[in-house]
Amino acid sequence: MQPSQLRTFSTKDTGWGFGQFIKRKDLEESPYLRDDVFSIRCDVTVSKEIFTEPIPQHVVVPPSNMHHHLGQLLLAGEAADVTFEVGEETFAAHRCILAARSPVFKAELLGPMKEKTATRVLIDDMEARVFKALLHFIYTDSLPAMDEGGAAEIAQHLLVAADRYDMERLKLICEGKLCDHICKSTVATTLALAEQHGCGALKKACFKFLMSPGNLKVVMESDGYEHLRSSCPSVLDELVAKLAP
Amino acid sequence: MQPSQLRTFSTKDTGWGFGQFIKRKDLEESPYLRDDVFSIRCDVTVSKEIFTEPIPQHVVVPPSNMHHHLGQLLLAGEAADVTFEVGEETFAAHRCILAARSPVFKAELLGPMKEKTATRVLIDDMEARVFKALLHFIYTDSLPAMDEGGAAEIAQHLLVAADRYDMERLKLICEGKLCDHICKSTVATTLALAEQHGCGALKKACFKFLMSPGNLKVVMESDGYEHLRSSCPSVLDELVAKLAP
Repeated sequence: MQPSQLRTFSTKDTGWGFGQFIKRKDLEESPYLRDDVFSIRCDVTVSKEIFTEPIPQHVVVPPSNMHHHLGQLLLAGEAADVTFEVGEETFAAHRCILAARSPVFKAELLGPMKEKTATRVLIDDMEARVFKALLHFIYTDSLPAMDEGGAAEIAQHLLVAADRYDMERLKLICEGKLCDHICKSTVATTLALAEQHGCGALKKACFKFLMSPGNLKVVMESDGYEHLRSSCPSVLDELVAKLAP
Repeated sequence: MQPSQLRTFSTKDTGWGFGQFIKRKDLEESPYLRDDVFSIRCDVTVSKEIFTEPIPQHVVVPPSNMHHHLGQLLLAGEAADVTFEVGEETFAAHRCILAARSPVFKAELLGPMKEKTATRVLIDDMEARVFKALLHFIYTDSLPAMDEGGAAEIAQHLLVAADRYDMERLKLICEGKLCDHICKSTVATTLALAEQHGCGALKKACFKFLMSPGNLKVVMESDGYEHLRSSCPSVLDELVAKLAP
């Protein structure tokens, strides 16, 4: 539908739309708010058939199942033509899928580099659980289920992996997750990461957090701050410039 | 959200929900109904920030691009490990992707059948344009762009292909398309197809069309009706039984 065809059934004063859907207090205390997510389902009921002539469409087409199919392919490892050794674990995968999803894998696995003919590839700079999550994303375009506690930490590692394999969408997803998890204990390492991997929005969010009253003083006492100072001194200069009265 | 967490804000008598959203007559005459489709956009406005501490989320994550990535892989044909000869054309493809998407391809290309080691597979019972559309669906989960005139005809062929390769979702998509294209010139061949491939909803839609005043007499004069009578005589018995006063 073109924007010009959109019709608003709500007016500011009366008519359609709910002025007081639910009170904030009620929402916050309700069981409907879970993990900071509130789902709304909109049902539209058409009370009678609009046309008298058409053939009823009784065919229900299920949603796309391609991600599921490829996820199963990864799990089963059938027809795999390359194996990655990461730490103590090995992962079987399919060159063509890795190449389709990452230009770096494409160059490494299909280009004139040494991995082209190797059936085993060693990954020595990544944890197995991070590589596993990376493969899950490559095959399904989604992150694996992870407990809330570890989500921020694995998102930091996955952002590094996404940058290394030039997977822009995964990088943005990680950036968004890290934005959601900025707190006093994560902000320093997150800011260093944002600076090292060119994540502008994440860096901005970290600055905003650090400039909120009280936060910076606590963060300065943390180990992460030491890491930030030694690895990205220029970021601290930027912060000081922002704080200058 | 689990069903138990759903909360209905509408009641039958009062409260949330619109009893008279728009009159049918107004809707039918309005420019908002286009091609038998009426889109409704639901805006939910949260009037104030619910939490006072959050970091604004500035990261915009683009939609899933996996279908596009695999579509590009099909187009480029890189790392292809099987070639199909269909009519005058050849198509390069990837065994693992075909196997992930179709149990029949999986058995043919990865199982102990003769095609397992063959790098060229002959398809002699399908038109090249149909096989091309099938591959497009396998890699992208969508049908290729096709002009409205040829859509019904290719949907007939694709339904046969979907049945042969046991691709249920594609079969349902074709069934839905054919339901939308039932007319006096297509109904006889469509009904024969529905009968031969076990498409209950499509068969029902064809019957409904044939039982509308005037349609059957015209259809009986067509070549398609001859085909229907010779290939699926039992369907005509069913139709006669339905028409019996």
